[in-house]
Amino acid sequence: MTNYSKVNVNGTDRVELHDTLGLTGAEVSVNFMPAGAGVPFVHAHKQNEEIYIILEGRGCMEIDGEKVALEANDFLRVSPEAKRQLFAAADSSIKYLCVQVKSGSLEEYTANDAVMS
Amino acid sequence: MTNYSKVNVNGTDRVELHDTLGLTGAEVSVNFMPAGAGVPFVHAHKQNEEIYIILEGRGCMEIDGEKVALEANDFLRVSPEAKRQLFAAADSSIKYLCVQVKSGSLEEYTANDAVMS
Repeated sequence: MTNYSKVNVNGTDRVELHDTLGLTGAEVSVNFMPAGAGVPFVHAHKQNEEIYIILEGRGCMEIDGEKVALEANDFLRVSPEAKRQLFAAADSSIKYLCVQVKSGSLEEYTANDAVMS
Repeated sequence: MTNYSKVNVNGTDRVELHDTLGLTGAEVSVNFMPAGAGVPFVHAHKQNEEIYIILEGRGCMEIDGEKVALEANDFLRVSPEAKRQLFAAADSSIKYLCVQVKSGSLEEYTANDAVMS
């Protein structure tokens, strides 16, 4: 494993980056759904917190039966046990990132985790 | 803690989302630097893997002395121990996300971690 890895995803509608980048603390995926489409199932997670980052368009996440509207520049945290299903809007596609991380795994960050040279 | 939290960052040049969203497995920040600017220090991390996601513009990450060009749609993994310093290009601003996660913390993901309803 080198000290870094890089990939460009321009023009890709759907890609999972865990293996491509050699990630060890997250899975990151780039996703696109056309207007009127939706993920065809409800799911929850055993361990993982999910962070959805809306890049373009609009949609809706149904979380434990509650509809949460989504638009570009929204950041959404979903707890592992929440039952979720994502839909694009009827009149708008949606492009988004999904970041999966182990719930409770972050011990320190930013200034507390940094080492200055 | 509810089963989800959401924030919109439209119009924000710099924001850290750990506390705002109640994240427990990551810190996620939104960042912007104008053309010609750079992070004014070299840093590494004790525990955390970083994932840089370039949203707009161009720049360069110097990693252990190596210059890595960055442009929109690049995803870059940096190991904790790597000494890094990020710069916008001389003729382009750069807008990016930085995701910090504990290196080695992800145990399972996607199909292996999902629970179907």
